[in-house]
Amino acid sequence: MNEKVLKNLEALRAEMRKYKITAVIVPGTDPHQSEYISDHWKVRDWVTGFTGSNGTAVITLDDARLWTDSRYFLQAGIELEGTGITMMKEDGGNDPTIEQWLAENLSEGDLLAVDGSLFSVPAANRLENLCGQIGARFAADFAPFDKIYADRPELPLDPIYVHEESYAGESTQSKINRLLDALAENGANATLLSALDEVAWLFNIRCNDVMFNPVATAYAYVSKRQRVLFIDERKVDDATAKYLADHAITVAPYKSVNDFLAKVKDDVVLLDPRSTSDTTARCLYNAETIFRQSPVALMKACKNDTQIEGTRRAMERDGVALVKLYMWLEQNVPAGKVNEVDVAEKVVEFRGESPLYRGESFAMAAGYRGNGAIVHYEAEPATAATVGVDGLLLVDTGAQYLDGTTDITRTVCFGTPTEEERHDYTLVLKGHLALGHVTFPEGTRGSQLDALARQFLWKEAKTYWHGTGHGVGHFLNVHEGPQNIRLNENPTTISPGMIISNEPGLYITDKYGIRIENLVLATSYKETADFGNFLRFETLTLFPYDTKLIDVDMLTAEEVRQVNDYHAMVRSRLTPLLNDEQTAWLNEKTQPITK
Amino acid sequence: MNEKVLKNLEALRAEMRKYKITAVIVPGTDPHQSEYISDHWKVRDWVTGFTGSNGTAVITLDDARLWTDSRYFLQAGIELEGTGITMMKEDGGNDPTIEQWLAENLSEGDLLAVDGSLFSVPAANRLENLCGQIGARFAADFAPFDKIYADRPELPLDPIYVHEESYAGESTQSKINRLLDALAENGANATLLSALDEVAWLFNIRCNDVMFNPVATAYAYVSKRQRVLFIDERKVDDATAKYLADHAITVAPYKSVNDFLAKVKDDVVLLDPRSTSDTTARCLYNAETIFRQSPVALMKACKNDTQIEGTRRAMERDGVALVKLYMWLEQNVPAGKVNEVDVAEKVVEFRGESPLYRGESFAMAAGYRGNGAIVHYEAEPATAATVGVDGLLLVDTGAQYLDGTTDITRTVCFGTPTEEERHDYTLVLKGHLALGHVTFPEGTRGSQLDALARQFLWKEAKTYWHGTGHGVGHFLNVHEGPQNIRLNENPTTISPGMIISNEPGLYITDKYGIRIENLVLATSYKETADFGNFLRFETLTLFPYDTKLIDVDMLTAEEVRQVNDYHAMVRSRLTPLLNDEQTAWLNEKTQPITK
Repeated sequence: MNEKVLKNLEALRAEMRKYKITAVIVPGTDPHQSEYISDHWKVRDWVTGFTGSNGTAVITLDDARLWTDSRYFLQAGIELEGTGITMMKEDGGNDPTIEQWLAENLSEGDLLAVDGSLFSVPAANRLENLCGQIGARFAADFAPFDKIYADRPELPLDPIYVHEESYAGESTQSKINRLLDALAENGANATLLSALDEVAWLFNIRCNDVMFNPVATAYAYVSKRQRVLFIDERKVDDATAKYLADHAITVAPYKSVNDFLAKVKDDVVLLDPRSTSDTTARCLYNAETIFRQSPVALMKACKNDTQIEGTRRAMERDGVALVKLYMWLEQNVPAGKVNEVDVAEKVVEFRGESPLYRGESFAMAAGYRGNGAIVHYEAEPATAATVGVDGLLLVDTGAQYLDGTTDITRTVCFGTPTEEERHDYTLVLKGHLALGHVTFPEGTRGSQLDALARQFLWKEAKTYWHGTGHGVGHFLNVHEGPQNIRLNENPTTISPGMIISNEPGLYITDKYGIRIENLVLATSYKETADFGNFLRFETLTLFPYDTKLIDVDMLTAEEVRQVNDYHAMVRSRLTPLLNDEQTAWLNEKTQPITK
Repeated sequence: MNEKVLKNLEALRAEMRKYKITAVIVPGTDPHQSEYISDHWKVRDWVTGFTGSNGTAVITLDDARLWTDSRYFLQAGIELEGTGITMMKEDGGNDPTIEQWLAENLSEGDLLAVDGSLFSVPAANRLENLCGQIGARFAADFAPFDKIYADRPELPLDPIYVHEESYAGESTQSKINRLLDALAENGANATLLSALDEVAWLFNIRCNDVMFNPVATAYAYVSKRQRVLFIDERKVDDATAKYLADHAITVAPYKSVNDFLAKVKDDVVLLDPRSTSDTTARCLYNAETIFRQSPVALMKACKNDTQIEGTRRAMERDGVALVKLYMWLEQNVPAGKVNEVDVAEKVVEFRGESPLYRGESFAMAAGYRGNGAIVHYEAEPATAATVGVDGLLLVDTGAQYLDGTTDITRTVCFGTPTEEERHDYTLVLKGHLALGHVTFPEGTRGSQLDALARQFLWKEAKTYWHGTGHGVGHFLNVHEGPQNIRLNENPTTISPGMIISNEPGLYITDKYGIRIENLVLATSYKETADFGNFLRFETLTLFPYDTKLIDVDMLTAEEVRQVNDYHAMVRSRLTPLLNDEQTAWLNEKTQPITK
């Protein structure tokens, strides 16, 4: 029995009975469709006891289910014990999807209810259509948690602060001007920004409301006549209030956004369907709305020179921290004194030596041997494996600095790797090098480049089931759109200034995981009269590959040169920041490889 | 003055005045949206005098324009002289598109009229929407040409014939059963096939109604209860009539299809929007319709073992004809006795020695020096260049055999190539080899593979502006969907049995064109437990590359091996069909290259 969850479930069902609701969907997101959310929004955790980052509950009066993916099957099994809630597998099984399950279990006349503020516009539309097909009713205004969740955490009250123009490289005024131009091109003259990183980027503000993402819980409304920041006013101190006033940005209560929108009349408001909640969109009933990708997404993705230069400096500092981390690992792993969780703690210590460090950019994934083969593995103190010398260690980690965001994966071996490990590592490396050194014409999409990173694995009938590259923010979310490099089609073309990860991998269940990840910057390379303009990638990340894992015989002469050139750059950029011992270590790690 | 065209234009305008029509669009296609059309449908040629394969006319009472692409700017300039018709450039200029021009030139209350049988469903919909936005009216039933075009050619009366199962590899009955299953999966129980190659494939019939494509002018209606072939009954001789009757296929007059469709009531009819005309679709007003890609497209694209084996044999015969052609060229070019048109005539002679030869699969493009840089260049007797020894000759040619369709491009030099020519040829070859030797997982789309063929050109800021690969029919259209390998996204995945061209190129204006094209067959390569199933390409085309043009220093050891392995295969497959002199020639041409 899990008394607490059973009590919470019953409280929810009492409300359901009151309104004659047949089924409720409780998702694990917030009204901004954020990847990471603050405790206030964790109502699904409260009602089910499940605390994983991905999970959606469906509750009826006599049934309760929780959908999650394979990362959380074990955890959900433990956390749901004694709750009567059934786990449903999103992958790796034959369980129906939520929509399939609803289609089978709802009948004509039933009432499906949700809190529309937690569903994007298309997600709510799909549910409404589904109900329409069944003859069931759909209500998007069932928000009982403020009432039934007694000790619900408040929204965080951390103060917002200005992200100085010396880091951001562009004033809020200039960004707003460009946004208004872009809105006009889309036939709109106003927009409501729901995505927290878009609000932070546009107004050059940051905060600590959620783990890993330095954003504030807020909305922004921008038109020619007004700019409004909807935020809890207790988060705005005098200095920031002055900054906002200086930029003609009005501050309004966070919870007043819907009332504000209901009064908007003469504006044509662009809304991004992926980040705007159904509730928010419905409030604009007096105004004309256009649903389209927010212009801020692309503006934010293309970094300016200041952001790029800042990111280069952040990479140097991050490289130094990683030199310290891997030196420490080399010293302590052979004695059996390091487990997977220690790695995460240690990197925070080394990065913290930089005054510009503002925390990790995501939860580090350090996976030894078979744990490395679990994509998105997060070690827990109770179960973390001790890192040894007879297997591969995969370390995926990233940091937030005031001048840039980092994300790097290295796969290393502290003993003698097997032939198989070296072979597979080299296959992954060849793809990583091919993508990192590609030249491509303007207009190229990420899905066109993805195969370059996979071709050598494919040749041996191997592949990996994650994307090859994601966009990365500037002192913002480590995962940002609209560009990416994936198997799937994405119409966004790769433009100069975009920062993208280059991270092919290979995962052999129960044996090892290999991933090699650098961040790269798309840059203009050459303009031609006959064939248009071409782009290249500049590698931003600065840390050597583990040459012990490279089977040089599998590399072409060009690939050998690419590895050596990269290592020479790493050495020349990091050495000025290292002491003698560290320099000696790095020199050894970046010795040229030869065929 | 061009009396004939002026008279025809006036006849059209008289009809327009009668119905108070403001503007008429006359396209260059047929009711089946065919790439090549029979003379009967060439109403645009009649009304404008322009005879190119791509061109659309817009006629108003006091203006007339013809849109075409850069292949035809010269020809259109000559053919439109004295007609008062203005040429509009579809590419390489700033001319408005037809829809932009209509938007600017039509006013509220105007009437835009077309013959809806010459427009696909989405094309007609776009025009109707455009008129709606302007407040103009749209009529899709203006078909004046039977009346005003006095000597309009009849539809061709060539007899249809059965494509024997020994070539087709599958009976009509089996194909129809599979089609009915596929329709059911799509929620339909009937379909009307408008695409001529789909009709020919389904019923295993062929004809000579249009150049290059061995199809008949016909429609097919298939449901559980009936199969109807709509065709001029004079084209069906006794033997074929018996074959059709044996397969329970009813023959109905070609022109009765619309009346037939208007009576369809209880069927749910799947229509392919790209090949179904607006007029045809509108006739199904009594039935439920589903617009979706025809299931026949994918069934036809995936060749069975008989078709594959037939295509391999056709490639051998085609290879022999090409050996004869290139030997003849080597003998006659140095004397200055060969022009571009002669090449086309000669290949027909050599291919014609095979009793299974049924004509060319498209108009040969033989382009010497700068002419080779004009994509889709077709030499004309009056202007054809004499082929010499101091430049590249690009020859793109293909044939129809009863057992398969071929399409091959080779770029050759009869003298000593320049360093630049060899360098660029080798870049193209490297891409051609990379694509030809890729291994890829099930589910891969052509747009994911396209970059493999372009990567080496891209590295030097070069590219080509055509697709890398198109689907190829089996004794059917040399261009067929739904798969292709292009920059553009296409959701069709590449499946075993698909035949696709592999034809990267490079075009240097006024200097030379380079293209290397083989047909490849997608085949199952390996099933894996962890990473799914993988595919590879088998190269079907059998003719050596011009090794004189290869800069071996630019190739990796693996690429050298790929060239030598291919040449060894060409030699072993063709030699049994060659005489001693030809064998000696081929041996020389396929000598291994070495670094």
